[in-house]
Amino acid sequence: MTDEWAPELVAEPTKDGVDRAVRAARRVVDGLVRAGRGSAADLEGVAGELERLADHLEDHAPDLGERIRQMWGVGGLEMTRHDPVTGPENALAPPLVVQGRSEKEVSGEVTFGLAYQGPPGHVHGGCTALVLDHALGMANHWAGTSGMTAKLALRYHRRTPLFVPLQVVARQVSVDGRRIVTTGEVLTPDGEVCVSAEGLFVVIDVSGAAAAMAETLAEN
Amino acid sequence: MTDEWAPELVAEPTKDGVDRAVRAARRVVDGLVRAGRGSAADLEGVAGELERLADHLEDHAPDLGERIRQMWGVGGLEMTRHDPVTGPENALAPPLVVQGRSEKEVSGEVTFGLAYQGPPGHVHGGCTALVLDHALGMANHWAGTSGMTAKLALRYHRRTPLFVPLQVVARQVSVDGRRIVTTGEVLTPDGEVCVSAEGLFVVIDVSGAAAAMAETLAEN
Repeated sequence: MTDEWAPELVAEPTKDGVDRAVRAARRVVDGLVRAGRGSAADLEGVAGELERLADHLEDHAPDLGERIRQMWGVGGLEMTRHDPVTGPENALAPPLVVQGRSEKEVSGEVTFGLAYQGPPGHVHGGCTALVLDHALGMANHWAGTSGMTAKLALRYHRRTPLFVPLQVVARQVSVDGRRIVTTGEVLTPDGEVCVSAEGLFVVIDVSGAAAAMAETLAEN
Repeated sequence: MTDEWAPELVAEPTKDGVDRAVRAARRVVDGLVRAGRGSAADLEGVAGELERLADHLEDHAPDLGERIRQMWGVGGLEMTRHDPVTGPENALAPPLVVQGRSEKEVSGEVTFGLAYQGPPGHVHGGCTALVLDHALGMANHWAGTSGMTAKLALRYHRRTPLFVPLQVVARQVSVDGRRIVTTGEVLTPDGEVCVSAEGLFVVIDVSGAAAAMAETLAEN
Protein backbone atom coordinates (compact mmCIF):
# COMPACT_ATOMS: atom_id res chain seq x y z
CA MET A 1 0.00 0.00 0.00
CA THR A 2 2.81 2.41 0.86
CA ASP A 3 4.39 2.43 -2.59
CA GLU A 4 1.47 4.34 -4.12
CA TRP A 5 1.99 7.12 -1.60
CA ALA A 6 3.79 10.37 -2.03
CA PRO A 7 7.04 11.07 -0.13
CA GLU A 8 6.98 11.07 3.65
CA LEU A 9 5.88 14.19 5.48
CA VAL A 10 8.04 13.63 8.54
CA ALA A 11 11.79 13.55 8.99
CA GLU A 12 13.37 10.13 8.66
CA PRO A 13 15.13 9.21 11.95
CA THR A 14 18.86 8.75 11.58
CA LYS A 15 20.81 5.81 13.02
CA ASP A 16 23.01 7.85 15.34
CA GLY A 17 23.33 10.86 17.60
CA VAL A 18 20.25 12.43 19.11
CA ASP A 19 17.80 10.23 17.19
CA ARG A 20 19.41 7.07 18.55
CA ALA A 21 19.34 8.53 22.08
CA VAL A 22 15.67 9.49 21.71
CA ARG A 23 14.71 5.98 20.57
CA ALA A 24 16.40 4.61 23.69
CA ALA A 25 14.74 7.30 25.87
CA ARG A 26 11.33 6.15 24.60
CA ARG A 27 12.21 2.62 25.75
CA VAL A 28 13.25 4.02 29.17
CA VAL A 29 9.96 5.96 29.51
CA ASP A 30 8.03 2.79 28.64
CA GLY A 31 10.20 0.67 30.92
CA LEU A 32 9.56 2.95 33.91
CA VAL A 33 5.76 2.89 33.47
CA ARG A 34 5.98 -0.86 33.02
CA ALA A 35 8.13 -1.14 36.17
CA GLY A 36 5.99 0.85 38.58
CA ARG A 37 6.84 -0.27 42.08
CA GLY A 38 6.67 -3.96 41.20
CA SER A 39 9.86 -4.34 39.16
CA ALA A 40 12.96 -6.29 40.13
CA ALA A 41 15.08 -3.58 38.43
CA ASP A 42 17.52 -1.47 40.45
CA LEU A 43 15.44 1.71 40.25
CA GLU A 44 17.70 3.77 42.53
CA GLY A 45 20.62 2.85 40.27
CA VAL A 46 18.60 3.74 37.15
CA ALA A 47 17.59 7.05 38.75
CA GLY A 48 21.21 7.93 39.54
CA GLU A 49 22.37 7.18 36.01
CA LEU A 50 19.50 9.12 34.44
CA GLU A 51 20.34 12.10 36.67
CA ARG A 52 23.95 11.93 35.50
CA LEU A 53 22.85 11.82 31.84
CA ALA A 54 20.44 14.74 32.39
CA ASP A 55 23.27 16.74 34.02
CA HIS A 56 25.52 16.01 31.04
CA LEU A 57 22.86 17.09 28.53
CA GLU A 58 22.05 20.26 30.48
CA ASP A 59 25.73 21.14 30.94
CA HIS A 60 26.28 20.95 27.17
CA ALA A 61 22.95 22.33 25.93
CA PRO A 62 22.84 25.21 23.48
CA ASP A 63 21.27 28.45 24.74
CA LEU A 64 17.47 27.99 24.88
CA GLY A 65 16.58 31.05 22.79
CA GLU A 66 19.22 30.11 20.26
CA ARG A 67 17.87 26.56 20.11
CA ILE A 68 14.31 27.78 19.44
CA ARG A 69 15.55 30.10 16.73
CA GLN A 70 17.53 27.23 15.18
CA MET A 71 14.55 24.82 15.31
CA TRP A 72 12.47 27.14 13.17
CA GLY A 73 15.18 28.59 10.99
CA VAL A 74 15.33 25.47 8.84
CA GLY A 75 13.30 24.34 5.86
CA GLY A 76 11.07 21.41 4.91
CA LEU A 77 11.17 18.17 6.88
CA GLU A 78 13.85 19.53 9.23
CA MET A 79 11.04 21.46 10.95
CA THR A 80 9.37 18.16 11.91
CA ARG A 81 12.40 16.88 13.85
CA HIS A 82 11.35 18.12 17.30
CA ASP A 83 7.54 18.04 17.70
CA PRO A 84 5.84 15.83 20.34
CA VAL A 85 3.94 13.70 17.79
CA THR A 86 6.33 12.81 14.96
CA GLY A 87 9.71 14.23 16.00
CA PRO A 88 12.75 11.92 15.97
CA GLU A 89 14.35 14.33 18.51
CA ASN A 90 11.37 14.13 20.88
CA ALA A 91 10.90 11.11 23.17
CA LEU A 92 7.30 12.15 23.92
CA ALA A 93 6.39 11.31 20.29
CA PRO A 94 5.04 7.71 19.96
CA PRO A 95 5.99 8.51 17.03
CA LEU A 96 3.34 9.00 14.33
CA VAL A 97 4.67 8.43 10.80
CA VAL A 98 2.73 10.27 8.08
CA GLN A 99 2.74 10.30 4.31
CA GLY A 100 0.81 12.26 1.70
CA ARG A 101 -1.94 10.01 0.27
CA SER A 102 -3.75 12.17 -2.25
CA GLU A 103 -3.88 15.85 -3.13
CA LYS A 104 -5.41 16.99 0.17
CA GLU A 105 -5.16 13.89 2.36
CA VAL A 106 -2.45 12.38 4.53
CA SER A 107 -2.29 8.95 6.12
CA GLY A 108 -0.11 7.50 8.80
CA GLU A 109 0.43 4.91 11.47
CA VAL A 110 1.02 5.05 15.20
CA THR A 111 1.31 2.45 17.96
CA PHE A 112 0.71 3.59 21.53
CA GLY A 113 2.54 1.83 24.35
CA LEU A 114 1.66 1.59 28.03
CA ALA A 115 2.75 5.19 28.78
CA TYR A 116 -0.19 6.48 26.69
CA GLN A 117 -2.84 4.61 28.70
CA GLY A 118 -6.11 6.24 29.77
CA PRO A 119 -8.82 3.70 30.59
CA PRO A 120 -7.50 0.24 31.52
CA GLY A 121 -5.65 -1.27 28.54
CA HIS A 122 -6.65 1.52 26.16
CA VAL A 123 -5.26 4.78 24.81
CA HIS A 124 -5.89 8.02 26.74
CA GLY A 125 -8.47 10.12 24.86
CA GLY A 126 -6.17 13.11 25.19
CA CYS A 127 -3.36 11.25 23.39
CA THR A 128 -5.57 10.50 20.39
CA ALA A 129 -6.62 14.18 20.49
CA LEU A 130 -2.94 15.21 20.39
CA VAL A 131 -2.21 12.95 17.42
CA LEU A 132 -5.33 14.09 15.55
CA ASP A 133 -4.64 17.80 16.10
CA HIS A 134 -1.19 17.24 14.67
CA ALA A 135 -2.39 15.08 11.75
CA LEU A 136 -4.98 17.71 10.77
CA GLY A 137 -2.19 20.31 10.79
CA MET A 138 -0.09 18.07 8.56
CA ALA A 139 -3.00 17.63 6.13
CA ASN A 140 -3.22 21.43 5.90
CA HIS A 141 0.51 21.66 5.25
CA TRP A 142 0.27 18.92 2.61
CA ALA A 143 -2.71 20.63 0.95
CA GLY A 144 -0.75 23.87 0.77
CA THR A 145 -2.59 26.16 3.23
CA SER A 146 -1.67 25.98 6.93
CA GLY A 147 -3.17 27.67 9.97
CA MET A 148 -3.38 27.62 13.75
CA THR A 149 -6.04 25.49 15.47
CA ALA A 150 -9.02 27.70 16.45
CA LYS A 151 -11.53 24.93 17.24
CA LEU A 152 -11.17 21.19 17.51
CA ALA A 153 -14.19 18.89 17.96
CA LEU A 154 -13.48 15.29 18.87
CA ARG A 155 -15.89 12.35 18.95
CA TYR A 156 -14.95 9.12 20.68
CA HIS A 157 -16.71 6.22 18.94
CA ARG A 158 -15.07 3.28 20.70
CA ARG A 159 -12.10 2.69 22.99
CA THR A 160 -8.74 2.87 21.19
CA PRO A 161 -6.52 -0.17 21.82
CA LEU A 162 -2.93 0.07 23.04
CA PHE A 163 -0.13 -1.99 21.43
CA VAL A 164 -1.54 -2.25 17.87
CA PRO A 165 -0.67 -0.22 14.74
CA LEU A 166 -3.48 2.32 14.41
CA GLN A 167 -4.26 4.14 11.17
CA VAL A 168 -4.46 7.92 11.24
CA VAL A 169 -6.07 9.71 8.28
CA ALA A 170 -6.68 13.44 7.80
CA ARG A 171 -7.76 15.65 4.92
CA GLN A 172 -8.35 19.34 4.24
CA VAL A 173 -12.04 19.80 3.46
CA SER A 174 -12.25 23.50 2.58
CA VAL A 175 -10.45 26.82 2.56
CA ASP A 176 -12.58 29.97 2.78
CA GLY A 177 -10.48 33.10 3.08
CA ARG A 178 -8.43 32.60 6.27
CA ARG A 179 -10.68 29.77 7.53
CA ILE A 180 -9.64 26.17 6.93
CA VAL A 181 -11.79 23.13 7.77
CA THR A 182 -10.01 19.82 8.21
CA THR A 183 -11.18 16.39 9.37
CA GLY A 184 -9.49 13.16 10.41
CA GLU A 185 -9.84 9.82 12.16
CA VAL A 186 -7.93 7.28 14.22
CA LEU A 187 -8.87 3.73 13.18
CA THR A 188 -8.10 0.22 14.39
CA PRO A 189 -6.01 -2.05 12.11
CA ASP A 190 -9.40 -3.47 10.93
CA GLY A 191 -10.59 -0.01 9.87
CA GLU A 192 -13.04 0.68 12.68
CA VAL A 193 -13.15 4.37 13.62
CA CYS A 194 -12.11 4.95 17.24
CA VAL A 195 -11.92 8.75 17.28
CA SER A 196 -12.91 11.36 14.69
CA ALA A 197 -12.01 15.05 14.63
CA GLU A 198 -13.12 18.20 12.88
CA GLY A 199 -10.90 21.25 13.15
CA LEU A 200 -11.25 24.88 12.24
CA PHE A 201 -7.89 26.45 11.49
CA VAL A 202 -7.11 30.10 10.89
CA VAL A 203 -4.30 31.31 8.65
CA ILE A 204 -1.96 33.31 10.90
CA ASP A 205 1.60 34.45 10.32
CA VAL A 206 3.73 32.86 13.07
CA SER A 207 7.03 33.49 11.31
CA GLY A 208 8.08 36.04 13.92
CA ALA A 209 7.09 33.93 16.93
CA ALA A 210 10.35 32.02 17.34
CA ALA A 211 12.43 35.22 17.27
CA ALA A 212 10.01 36.93 19.68
CA MET A 213 10.24 34.05 22.19
CA ALA A 214 14.04 33.98 21.88
CA GLU A 215 14.12 37.71 22.69
CA THR A 216 11.77 37.27 25.67
CA LEU A 217 14.01 34.52 27.03
CA ALA A 218 17.10 36.67 26.56
CA GLU A 219 15.48 39.52 28.54
CA ASN A 220 14.60 37.30 31.51
CA MET B 1 -4.31 30.19 48.09
CA THR B 2 -3.60 26.47 48.38
CA ASP B 3 -4.49 26.17 52.05
CA GLU B 4 -8.20 26.72 51.41
CA TRP B 5 -8.21 23.77 49.02
CA ALA B 6 -9.26 20.22 49.65
CA PRO B 7 -6.69 17.39 49.59
CA GLU B 8 -4.74 16.71 46.41
CA LEU B 9 -6.34 14.59 43.71
CA VAL B 10 -3.09 13.15 42.41
CA ALA B 11 -0.52 10.89 44.01
CA GLU B 12 2.33 12.69 45.78
CA PRO B 13 5.66 11.72 44.13
CA THR B 14 8.03 9.92 46.47
CA LYS B 15 11.71 10.79 46.84
CA ASP B 16 13.06 7.44 45.66
CA GLY B 17 12.65 4.46 43.35
CA VAL B 18 10.61 4.78 40.20
CA ASP B 19 9.42 8.33 40.95
CA ARG B 20 12.99 9.58 41.27
CA ALA B 21 13.92 7.79 38.02
CA VAL B 22 10.91 9.32 36.23
CA ARG B 23 11.83 12.83 37.35
CA ALA B 24 15.30 12.29 35.89
CA ALA B 25 13.82 10.76 32.71
CA ARG B 26 11.76 13.94 32.21
CA ARG B 27 14.99 15.94 32.38
CA VAL B 28 16.57 13.58 29.81
CA VAL B 29 13.59 13.96 27.44
CA ASP B 30 13.85 17.74 27.77
CA GLY B 31 17.63 17.66 27.42
CA LEU B 32 17.42 15.70 24.16
CA VAL B 33 14.91 18.09 22.55
CA ARG B 34 17.04 20.98 23.77
CA ALA B 35 20.16 19.30 22.32
CA GLY B 36 18.93 18.55 18.82
CA ARG B 37 21.94 18.25 16.56
CA GLY B 38 23.56 21.40 17.93
CA SER B 39 24.68 20.19 21.35
CA ALA B 40 28.23 19.68 22.54
CA ALA B 41 27.04 16.63 24.53
CA ASP B 42 28.34 13.15 23.72
CA LEU B 43 25.07 11.94 22.18
CA GLU B 44 26.41 8.55 21.07
CA GLY B 45 27.55 7.96 24.63
CA VAL B 46 24.17 9.08 26.02
CA ALA B 47 22.41 6.78 23.52
CA GLY B 48 24.52 3.79 24.57
CA GLU B 49 23.83 4.37 28.26
CA LEU B 50 20.10 4.87 27.70
CA GLU B 51 20.00 1.61 25.71
CA ARG B 52 21.69 -0.18 28.60
CA LEU B 53 19.18 1.27 31.10
CA ALA B 54 16.26 0.32 28.83
CA ASP B 55 17.64 -3.24 28.56
CA HIS B 56 17.90 -3.44 32.35
CA LEU B 57 14.32 -2.21 32.84
CA GLU B 58 12.97 -4.58 30.18
CA ASP B 59 14.91 -7.56 31.56
CA HIS B 60 13.42 -7.00 35.01
CA ALA B 61 9.90 -5.87 34.04
CA PRO B 62 6.84 -7.57 35.47
CA ASP B 63 4.62 -9.40 32.98
CA LEU B 64 2.64 -6.81 30.96
CA GLY B 65 -0.81 -8.27 31.65
CA GLU B 66 0.04 -8.61 35.32
CA ARG B 67 1.26 -5.00 35.42
CA ILE B 68 -1.99 -3.70 33.89
CA ARG B 69 -4.03 -5.73 36.36
CA GLN B 70 -1.92 -4.37 39.22
CA MET B 71 -2.23 -0.74 38.02
CA TRP B 72 -5.99 -0.90 38.27
CA GLY B 73 -6.35 -3.23 41.23
CA VAL B 74 -5.53 -0.47 43.69
CA GLY B 75 -7.65 2.19 45.32
CA GLY B 76 -7.75 5.99 45.51
CA LEU B 77 -4.73 8.05 44.55
CA GLU B 78 -2.66 4.95 43.73
CA MET B 79 -4.64 4.81 40.47
CA THR B 80 -3.20 8.19 39.44
CA ARG B 81 0.42 7.01 39.63
CA HIS B 82 0.83 6.00 35.98
CA ASP B 83 -1.23 8.25 33.67
CA PRO B 84 0.41 10.49 31.01
CA VAL B 85 -0.82 13.77 32.55
CA THR B 86 -0.29 13.59 36.33
CA GLY B 87 1.46 10.26 36.96
CA PRO B 88 4.69 10.24 39.01
CA GLU B 89 5.57 6.94 37.26
CA ASN B 90 5.09 8.42 33.77
CA ALA B 91 7.79 10.60 32.21
CA LEU B 92 5.35 11.80 29.52
CA ALA B 93 3.41 13.70 32.22
CA PRO B 94 4.55 17.36 32.48
CA PRO B 95 3.13 16.73 35.24
CA LEU B 96 -0.17 18.46 36.02
CA VAL B 97 -0.87 18.78 39.74
CA VAL B 98 -4.56 19.01 40.65
CA GLN B 99 -6.53 19.71 43.79
CA GLY B 100 -10.24 19.84 44.59
CA ARG B 101 -11.32 23.49 44.77
CA SER B 102 -15.03 23.38 45.52
CA GLU B 103 -17.75 20.75 45.48
CA LYS B 104 -17.67 20.14 41.72
CA GLU B 105 -14.52 22.01 40.62
CA VAL B 106 -10.83 21.14 40.50
CA SER B 107 -7.87 23.42 39.92
CA GLY B 108 -4.27 22.74 39.10
CA GLU B 109 -1.02 23.93 37.67
CA VAL B 110 1.21 22.75 34.85
CA THR B 111 4.38 24.06 33.21
CA PHE B 112 5.19 22.84 29.71
CA GLY B 113 8.83 22.59 28.65
CA LEU B 114 10.35 22.58 25.17
CA ALA B 115 9.25 18.99 24.44
CA TYR B 116 5.60 20.14 24.40
CA GLN B 117 6.14 22.79 21.72
CA GLY B 118 3.72 23.24 18.82
CA PRO B 119 4.01 26.70 17.20
CA PRO B 120 7.36 28.43 17.77
CA GLY B 121 7.84 29.08 21.49
CA HIS B 122 4.33 27.96 22.40
CA VAL B 123 2.54 24.84 23.64
CA HIS B 124 1.24 22.33 21.10
CA GLY B 125 -2.57 22.58 20.90
CA GLY B 126 -2.78 18.81 21.25
CA CYS B 127 -0.90 18.95 24.56
CA THR B 128 -3.37 21.43 26.07
CA ALA B 129 -6.14 19.15 24.70
CA LEU B 130 -4.57 16.19 26.52
CA VAL B 131 -4.32 18.09 29.80
CA LEU B 132 -7.87 19.42 29.51
CA ASP B 133 -9.38 16.01 28.70
CA HIS B 134 -7.67 14.67 31.79
CA ALA B 135 -8.65 17.61 34.02
CA LEU B 136 -12.30 17.30 32.97
CA GLY B 137 -12.15 13.62 33.90
CA MET B 138 -10.68 14.54 37.29
CA ALA B 139 -13.47 17.08 37.89
CA ASN B 140 -15.99 14.30 37.22
CA HIS B 141 -14.17 12.01 39.66
CA TRP B 142 -14.05 14.79 42.25
CA ALA B 143 -17.77 15.57 41.77
CA GLY B 144 -18.59 11.89 42.32
CA THR B 145 -19.80 10.73 38.87
CA SER B 146 -17.22 9.62 36.30
CA GLY B 147 -17.56 8.62 32.67
CA MET B 148 -15.68 8.04 29.44
CA THR B 149 -15.16 10.95 27.02
CA ALA B 150 -17.78 10.81 24.24
CA LYS B 151 -17.25 14.32 22.80
CA LEU B 152 -14.66 16.98 23.49
CA ALA B 153 -14.90 20.46 21.99
CA LEU B 154 -11.84 22.69 22.29
CA ARG B 155 -11.53 26.40 21.54
CA TYR B 156 -8.12 28.03 21.20
CA HIS B 157 -8.37 31.67 22.28
CA ARG B 158 -4.69 32.66 22.25
CA ARG B 159 -1.35 30.91 21.99
CA THR B 160 -0.34 29.11 25.21
CA PRO B 161 3.15 30.04 26.42
CA LEU B 162 5.85 27.48 27.23
CA PHE B 163 7.95 27.72 30.43
CA VAL B 164 5.37 29.45 32.71
CA PRO B 165 3.07 27.95 35.36
CA LEU B 166 -0.34 27.72 33.70
CA GLN B 167 -3.57 27.39 35.64
CA VAL B 168 -5.92 24.54 34.75
CA VAL B 169 -9.50 24.67 36.03
CA ALA B 170 -12.35 22.22 35.40
CA ARG B 171 -15.83 21.68 36.79
CA GLN B 172 -18.73 19.30 36.34
CA VAL B 173 -21.69 21.29 34.99
CA SER B 174 -24.48 18.71 34.89
CA VAL B 175 -25.35 15.04 35.21
CA ASP B 176 -28.43 13.81 33.34
CA GLY B 177 -28.84 10.05 33.59
CA ARG B 178 -25.63 8.62 32.09
CA ARG B 179 -24.67 11.94 30.40
CA ILE B 180 -22.21 14.23 32.13
CA VAL B 181 -21.26 17.72 30.89
CA THR B 182 -17.96 19.15 32.10
CA THR B 183 -16.03 22.29 31.17
CA GLY B 184 -12.54 23.61 31.80
CA GLU B 185 -9.85 26.09 30.82
CA VAL B 186 -6.10 26.52 30.58
CA LEU B 187 -5.10 30.06 31.64
CA THR B 188 -1.93 32.11 31.71
CA PRO B 189 -0.47 33.07 35.13
CA ASP B 190 -2.32 36.40 34.62
CA GLY B 191 -5.66 34.62 34.23
CA GLU B 192 -6.10 35.00 30.47
CA VAL B 193 -7.89 32.02 28.92
CA CYS B 194 -5.71 30.25 26.34
CA VAL B 195 -7.82 27.17 25.67
CA SER B 196 -11.33 26.22 26.81
CA ALA B 197 -13.01 22.84 26.62
CA GLU B 198 -16.48 21.36 26.90
CA GLY B 199 -16.79 17.61 27.24
CA LEU B 200 -19.67 15.17 27.11
CA PHE B 201 -18.92 12.08 29.19
CA VAL B 202 -20.94 8.90 29.39
CA VAL B 203 -21.10 6.72 32.49
CA ILE B 204 -19.70 3.33 31.46
CA ASP B 205 -18.51 0.44 33.60
CA VAL B 206 -14.85 -0.14 32.74
CA SER B 207 -14.12 -2.24 35.82
CA GLY B 208 -13.63 -5.38 33.71
CA ALA B 209 -11.41 -3.74 31.08
CA ALA B 210 -8.06 -4.28 32.80
CA ALA B 211 -8.71 -7.99 33.35
CA ALA B 212 -9.98 -8.35 29.76
CA MET B 213 -6.82 -6.72 28.33
CA ALA B 214 -4.61 -8.89 30.59
CA GLU B 215 -6.36 -12.00 29.24
CA THR B 216 -5.98 -10.85 25.62
CA LEU B 217 -2.27 -10.27 26.17
CA ALA B 218 -1.89 -13.71 27.77
CA GLU B 219 -3.57 -15.37 24.76
CA ASN B 220 -1.25 -13.71 22.22
